[in-house]
Amino acid sequence: MPEAAFADAAARLRPLDEGARAAARVRHDQLTKPPGSLGGLEELGAQLAAISGRCPPPVPQSPAVAVFAADHGVAVAGVTMWPQDITAQMVANFVAGGAAINVIARQVGAAVHVVDVGVAAELGDEPGVRDHKVRPGTASLADGPAMTETEAMTALDAGAEVAAQLAGEGHDLLVTGDMGIGNTTAAAALVSVYCDRPASDVTGPGAGSDADTVARKVAVVAAAADRARRQNEPVAVLAEVGGLEIAALAGFVVGAAAARVPVVVDGVITLAALAAADAIVPGVGAHCIAGHRSPEPGASAVLEDLGLEPILDMGLRLGEGTGGCLAVAIVQAAARVLGEMATFDALGG
Amino acid sequence: MPEAAFADAAARLRPLDEGARAAARVRHDQLTKPPGSLGGLEELGAQLAAISGRCPPPVPQSPAVAVFAADHGVAVAGVTMWPQDITAQMVANFVAGGAAINVIARQVGAAVHVVDVGVAAELGDEPGVRDHKVRPGTASLADGPAMTETEAMTALDAGAEVAAQLAGEGHDLLVTGDMGIGNTTAAAALVSVYCDRPASDVTGPGAGSDADTVARKVAVVAAAADRARRQNEPVAVLAEVGGLEIAALAGFVVGAAAARVPVVVDGVITLAALAAADAIVPGVGAHCIAGHRSPEPGASAVLEDLGLEPILDMGLRLGEGTGGCLAVAIVQAAARVLGEMATFDALGG
Repeated sequence: MPEAAFADAAARLRPLDEGARAAARVRHDQLTKPPGSLGGLEELGAQLAAISGRCPPPVPQSPAVAVFAADHGVAVAGVTMWPQDITAQMVANFVAGGAAINVIARQVGAAVHVVDVGVAAELGDEPGVRDHKVRPGTASLADGPAMTETEAMTALDAGAEVAAQLAGEGHDLLVTGDMGIGNTTAAAALVSVYCDRPASDVTGPGAGSDADTVARKVAVVAAAADRARRQNEPVAVLAEVGGLEIAALAGFVVGAAAARVPVVVDGVITLAALAAADAIVPGVGAHCIAGHRSPEPGASAVLEDLGLEPILDMGLRLGEGTGGCLAVAIVQAAARVLGEMATFDALGG
Repeated sequence: MPEAAFADAAARLRPLDEGARAAARVRHDQLTKPPGSLGGLEELGAQLAAISGRCPPPVPQSPAVAVFAADHGVAVAGVTMWPQDITAQMVANFVAGGAAINVIARQVGAAVHVVDVGVAAELGDEPGVRDHKVRPGTASLADGPAMTETEAMTALDAGAEVAAQLAGEGHDLLVTGDMGIGNTTAAAALVSVYCDRPASDVTGPGAGSDADTVARKVAVVAAAADRARRQNEPVAVLAEVGGLEIAALAGFVVGAAAARVPVVVDGVITLAALAAADAIVPGVGAHCIAGHRSPEPGASAVLEDLGLEPILDMGLRLGEGTGGCLAVAIVQAAARVLGEMATFDALGG
């Protein structure tokens, strides 16, 4: 891999193939069903055609979810109900196959790849974890910059590199996943800045905070976002209030888009990463597929700003890639419908 | 099979196992995730526990979709843009494997079973079609009763019998499907009566009718529903304004519930059937899983009245079981999460 995987991916990104999208829509109107009657599944198929540049698009056969894990210094600022060492425990759980993402991935036939970009614990040679640790957790964004711009760039590169590797290994559908106690605070701050929303509009309870915790979280997010707004460059915003796994996820979606592999984004953490990615590489958001609508308010802000219509809306707020992974069979079906359905002409109708 | 498969199934129906549902909720709070963070997937798992009487519930391994096909005399009354012979053509398409339901079923590993309960064409010995033809299409519900009560009962029996057969063949997850040009008119009339809603609130464009056609459809539905409201028995309502495939679907869901096999209901046609089933066998609606929310207004009326929360909301309005079938992997994942996820105790957390 080149040193600067992210810059390389950004340079290789090509526009979506709108001709293939239009061809998919024409084909949908020839299939044995009333035009438009498959609703969102038709638009999803057209998006897959635009991503792949082919109509019908290839049916993804080998999905993979990449779970980026990192810790957040802000976790000790009273913004979460969970102790920070849960991050490392959950990484061990991912490796052992006992987490929700493992179970859902098994159901849809997806491989799970765990990437350490900044867990605040020595994972040693934990088998099954890709080591891209940039630093052992960010500094607290409540007190100052979460990381340096160089560290943010290193995490962006790690994400882009993992996407290129997974695509190179034959994975033809990628799903984004995250683990990091405290990361909904960083995500809310990023969304507040990139989507220009007040902190109170984009900060939620995350993985189940009580009202006092949410109130502290809003104050932390508001102060951090105010600070980040003074930065002129989107990477500087990411460094100021982001997270290592969030930066890596931003790199991952750009890497996937550059490789023309469809990427299903999960909940509010990836959506914050996607807002960052789209600020750094304008237009990359349109290359993605939104797996679900998280109830976290920041998720809807990004979906709205990027014009993405999520596949599922089941109130999932776990992260790990669970919402994205649950949508995999629907993405596969959307491609398959375009390739395998009969036309009225063929039916003699 | 006994002669009266429907009455037999209704007699065998047992209450949902609320103890197993409660056990599933307790177990969900022990799993390695914040309590409630899997949202609707947790409730779906609890419903599978209540249906099966086991926690964790068995993971469905052999799904099947039953597509009930029949014609509607009302199709010639200007309520649809499609010629009636599309019904028979689509049955041939189902058998050939080229319809949307075939493609989606292949994606999720579901078998497709086609049942003729009243197609207005001689299908002969079309291989792959179960012959339960009650009559070659209903009479027009615009002019009088669509069928006799005896015919409605025969169709209810056919549906219950097919459910028992599929369960007996080892299918452990059933999906409802329908085909019948004109059937959204019958469905709207049934929903108007069973859910006590004005015709204009529950009548939509179906598979793509224009405004003039919808206006004619509302008038036909209103007049038919007024007539049906004078009937005292729910089976008489079904005979007056229903359809043969709708009656069979009502029988099918009761048969599935009696066999304690989870049944995923599709769009407005099955939901109208479910409203009928719930009127005939009070409480059976709560045994079902709603696969998706059809944009047809009648669908939401039934979902609301029966307290069902659909899994998907993708604007599908094709029928055939497509929306139910698309949700299959999610239903399987809901069961699997309860059975396979680690607990925090086991994690040592």
